Amino acid sequence: MKEVHVLTPNKAYDIVFEQDYKRLSELIKAMDKGYSKIAILTDDKVGPLYADQMLEALRSLEIECLSYSFPNGEINKNYESINSFYDFLIRNRYDRNSLLIALGGGVVGDMVGFTSATYMRGVDFIQAPTSLLAQVDSSVGGKTGIDFNGYKNIVGAFYQPELVYINTSTLSTLDPIQFASGMGEALKHGMIMDSSYLEEMINDAQAILNLEHDAISRLVGRSCQIKANVVSQDEKEQGLRAILNFGHTIGHAVERLKNFELGHGQCVALGMVASSHISLKLGQLTPMELEIIEKAIKRYSLPTTVDGLSVDEIYQELFYDKKTRHNKINIVILDGIGQCYQNRSLTEDQIKEGIKVILN
Amino acid sequence: MKEVHVLTPNKAYDIVFEQDYKRLSELIKAMDKGYSKIAILTDDKVGPLYADQMLEALRSLEIECLSYSFPNGEINKNYESINSFYDFLIRNRYDRNSLLIALGGGVVGDMVGFTSATYMRGVDFIQAPTSLLAQVDSSVGGKTGIDFNGYKNIVGAFYQPELVYINTSTLSTLDPIQFASGMGEALKHGMIMDSSYLEEMINDAQAILNLEHDAISRLVGRSCQIKANVVSQDEKEQGLRAILNFGHTIGHAVERLKNFELGHGQCVALGMVASSHISLKLGQLTPMELEIIEKAIKRYSLPTTVDGLSVDEIYQELFYDKKTRHNKINIVILDGIGQCYQNRSLTEDQIKEGIKVILN
Repeated sequence: MKEVHVLTPNKAYDIVFEQDYKRLSELIKAMDKGYSKIAILTDDKVGPLYADQMLEALRSLEIECLSYSFPNGEINKNYESINSFYDFLIRNRYDRNSLLIALGGGVVGDMVGFTSATYMRGVDFIQAPTSLLAQVDSSVGGKTGIDFNGYKNIVGAFYQPELVYINTSTLSTLDPIQFASGMGEALKHGMIMDSSYLEEMINDAQAILNLEHDAISRLVGRSCQIKANVVSQDEKEQGLRAILNFGHTIGHAVERLKNFELGHGQCVALGMVASSHISLKLGQLTPMELEIIEKAIKRYSLPTTVDGLSVDEIYQELFYDKKTRHNKINIVILDGIGQCYQNRSLTEDQIKEGIKVILN
Repeated sequence: MKEVHVLTPNKAYDIVFEQDYKRLSELIKAMDKGYSKIAILTDDKVGPLYADQMLEALRSLEIECLSYSFPNGEINKNYESINSFYDFLIRNRYDRNSLLIALGGGVVGDMVGFTSATYMRGVDFIQAPTSLLAQVDSSVGGKTGIDFNGYKNIVGAFYQPELVYINTSTLSTLDPIQFASGMGEALKHGMIMDSSYLEEMINDAQAILNLEHDAISRLVGRSCQIKANVVSQDEKEQGLRAILNFGHTIGHAVERLKNFELGHGQCVALGMVASSHISLKLGQLTPMELEIIEKAIKRYSLPTTVDGLSVDEIYQELFYDKKTRHNKINIVILDGIGQCYQNRSLTEDQIKEGIKVILN
C-alpha cells in the first residue's frame, strides 16, 4: 500500500507510507499553498529522535522552519501545553498562512491538531505520527482535542489535516507497551469491519511483533484504509463513525478511573472483551468467535482483566462519555466478527454483566 | 425588517429581530433537534437583567435549562473563563446534544461561540446579542474566540450558530460609550458597502440616539443584512470578508497598545479615520467624502484622535495582526464611500502618514 485517500465534505487529503522523511518537502511543495513559515511541534521524547531528520528533509523548501517540544505524556495533554504552543507561535510571529507539523504519538497529534484548529481561527497542519496507535488510528480522521479535569478529549474540534505522513521506521524506537496499545486499535478494526484482517493479525503476529517491514506496512495501510473509509462517510460522528467506538465506552471509563495509568489500547482491549461478552449474551457472537477475539488480544500482550475497580464505579462513569446522549449509554455490539452496530437500549444489568467479566 | 438569512457552505441560519424573548421557544421547537439540555451562558452584568426573562420564555419547551454567568468584561475573555464554562457543563452533565445560548454582548458571544465549537468537539448554540456592537456585527458570521497574552481573538474558530435572536429592547440598558462602540461598526458597514446607509445614519442620528424603535430596527436590520451578504459569500475570510476589516488593522493595534481600555468601536473609528486619510492620499477619496466620514464618526461621539501613542509603536504593532501574512500589512482602502478593496502593497511611509493623523 502506497497511499490512502480520505475525502470529507470540506477536505480531501492523502495518507502516505514511507521509511523516512525524505518525501515530505516534495509533498508540501505540491500543495502549492505558499506557506510563510513551518513549525514542527513535538514532545521531548520524540523530538530528540526525529526532529532534526525532519528539519533536514524540509531544508530544500527554503521556508523558515522552527521546532518546539513540550513534555511527553497524556498528563500534559491539557490547556497549559496548548497555551505554550500558542505562546511559541505568537513570539515567533507565525501568521495565518503557517503550516504546523505534529511529530509524535497520539497526544502530540491531538494537541497540535487542536492548536491548528484554533490558532488564529485555523491554520494548516500535517500529521506525522510516530507511534503505532497514532499511525493506525488517531492521526486519521480529524479528531483533535485535549483532556480537561480528567475527562479525555472533552475539549476539541473536528479539524482535518492537509496530509498524514507515516514513517513506519519510527516504530523501532517505540516501547512494547505502547506498541501493544496501538495493536488494540488495529485489532478493533478487524473485529468491527474485516474478519480476514483480524485473522491475518493472528497469523502474522510474529512478523508484526518483530517489526518486519512488509508485515508492518500491510498492517498500518489496512487499518488506515478502514479508518479512512469510515471517516469519509461520516466525518463528524453522526452515524457510522460511532462504530469505531467499539470497546471505547467501557475502555474510556476504565482509563479515567485508573487516572490514565493504563495505555489507551490496553483500556480499549478491556472494553472490547466486556462488549464481546455482552454480544455473546445477546446471541450475536458465538463462543468460538469470542475465543478468537480473546486469543488475538492476548497474543499482543493486551489485558483481558483489570484490578482494583468495581462494577458500580465503572457503570457510573459511563454516563460521562461524550457519546452518551439523553443519559442513554451507547455500546457498540459485534454481530459476528467483522460486523457491528450501536446499541443504546441495553439494560443496566446487561451492561454490568459485561463489565463483571473484566474485573479480577 | 423581520428576518435576515445567512447561508454558509455548511450551515444556513436566520437572524430574527424581536422586542422580547417570547418567540425563542417556538423557534427552538421548529429546529426539531431534540435537545437534551439548554444552558444560558451570560455575564454578571447582563445575566441579572435578562436571564430570568429568557428562562421564563423557554419554560414551555420542557427541557432542563440552567443559566451560568461569569464576570463581565473584555479582561475576562480568556481561557480561564472558558474553562469555567467547560467545568459548569461537565458538572451538570451537558452532553453533545445540548444547546448553548450566548446571552450578552460581543465578549459573551465570542466566548460562548468558542465554547460551543470546542465542548465535546462541537455543540449547537444560539447567539442572543444584547449590545449594539454584538447586534450589528459580532453575533453574525461565526467568528468566535478569546484573547491570549494581550492578542485579541488570536485563539478561536469559525463556528456558525443555529440562530441569531436579536431583542432590540435590551439596548435600553446599554451605556452610551458602548452604544457608540456599536455605532462604529454600523458606520463601517455604510462606509464600505452602502453610501445611502451611511447617509441615513447621519440624517436619523437623533432618532437612533433616542433609541426610537423604528430607527433602531432599521439600523440593526440593515447592518445584519450587509454582514450576512458578505459572510454568505466568504465564510472563512479568504477574500471578500476581509473588507469588513476596514479600520480594524490600525484599530486593533491601538486597542492592544491601550490595553483594551478604549472600546472596540472607538478604536475602529480611529482606524477608519487613519485609513480614510490614506485613501485620500491615494486619490481614492475626495476631501468632501473624508469630511462626511469624519462628521458621521463625531456625530456618534466616537473619537478621531488618541493620546499617548507614537507612530512607530502603532506601526510595529500592525505586524501582529491576524491578517498580516508574509509580513505584508493589509489595509482596507475606501474607493469612494460605499466601495473598498484590500491593499497589501502600501509603503511604510504611506501607512505612517495615516497613523499620524489620529495622534494628538
